[in-house]
Amino acid sequence: MSVSEKLISKFIVIEGLEGAGKSTAVSYISKWLSEQNIASDDVVYTREPGGTALAEKMRDIVKMEVAGEKLDDKAELLLMYAARVQLVEHIIKPALAAGKVVVGDRHNYSSLAYQGGGRGIDLALIEVIKKVSLGDFKADFTLYLDIDPALGLTRARGRGELDRIERQAIDFFDRTRAVFLSLVAKDDNAVSIDASASPELVEKAIFVALNKWVMSLA
Amino acid sequence: MSVSEKLISKFIVIEGLEGAGKSTAVSYISKWLSEQNIASDDVVYTREPGGTALAEKMRDIVKMEVAGEKLDDKAELLLMYAARVQLVEHIIKPALAAGKVVVGDRHNYSSLAYQGGGRGIDLALIEVIKKVSLGDFKADFTLYLDIDPALGLTRARGRGELDRIERQAIDFFDRTRAVFLSLVAKDDNAVSIDASASPELVEKAIFVALNKWVMSLA
Repeated sequence: MSVSEKLISKFIVIEGLEGAGKSTAVSYISKWLSEQNIASDDVVYTREPGGTALAEKMRDIVKMEVAGEKLDDKAELLLMYAARVQLVEHIIKPALAAGKVVVGDRHNYSSLAYQGGGRGIDLALIEVIKKVSLGDFKADFTLYLDIDPALGLTRARGRGELDRIERQAIDFFDRTRAVFLSLVAKDDNAVSIDASASPELVEKAIFVALNKWVMSLA
Repeated sequence: MSVSEKLISKFIVIEGLEGAGKSTAVSYISKWLSEQNIASDDVVYTREPGGTALAEKMRDIVKMEVAGEKLDDKAELLLMYAARVQLVEHIIKPALAAGKVVVGDRHNYSSLAYQGGGRGIDLALIEVIKKVSLGDFKADFTLYLDIDPALGLTRARGRGELDRIERQAIDFFDRTRAVFLSLVAKDDNAVSIDASASPELVEKAIFVALNKWVMSLA
């Protein structure tokens, strides 16, 4: 089977902390897909939370600041999965069913890392919510951009004002990173990339990882 | 212990289909509480989904109509629990902790009835989401206003245009009602009231049920 045939209906996800360079990584994946003769019309890009009109409304609530009312951690978790279900059912599954490649900026690991690691919600509870929400649906391949939180936040700050989540203390992100790393370590279809390296090296590492993954496909 | 002492920190919930008369029932409960010497300052009224700034935003999404995008059933379920968690943690639990009586227009049984019965989501899955979201938190007493869906909808229509949920076919509400009835049958702290009766009879039935319940309290 050709590489382009192997990529039919595959869901590739980029994960990582703020400032890890996810958007740039998406552009590298886009370039790589083009080099594998995947037409740009056959690639669908998603961003979580959000990606549909209703899921973006849910994203707005997660980002919203209301005087005197903090969004409860479990309410945040449930909103994240509500938005994810909406995106998966309305955008991702139909695209995969049509044979397209889907490239996702964040997916399920972000909830385990941020709400589990960062907020401290029991990971087993999050797995239950995931299973109830999405069953066995998951990414075919995950590229995790690993970065020291302090460096990532410095980069993110350069982009403008930090939002509510970005302003959490560094130890929140340390815990988030630890969960990302442990998830990737247990997942044969996930790779950790050193995102503190130069853009050239990150691009190269992503290409190597994608080539290795696609070679492993039947 | 006096009746008013027994009512300290109690959560009383009204459940029922559209047009069953929940708002009127809340006014009967209010009157009954006043007769038990509960000061109006010591009663907090809630409405679900909603009841906090953020929970109302979630309610808006549930009620929203977006061209070409139906809210996924599981996303709807997760939103309902996100809104419920937010309300319980920010309003209901603090009120109960302060010794107040909370009177809720809808609570957990509505999710089991509408999303489980109406939409057909497995009730066991909803119980899992409930447990993860709220643990063992539940109403102290539930008054379910039972009405034939056709009659309830006729009443609701008299109030103005039906929203997205209200426009569901009658068999949706038949399934919803069946779950409400089975939940109440299994709950020693829930009573079904015939809401097709005259307002006087409904008021009397509610007073009888509340008196019986409060007598049963230690």
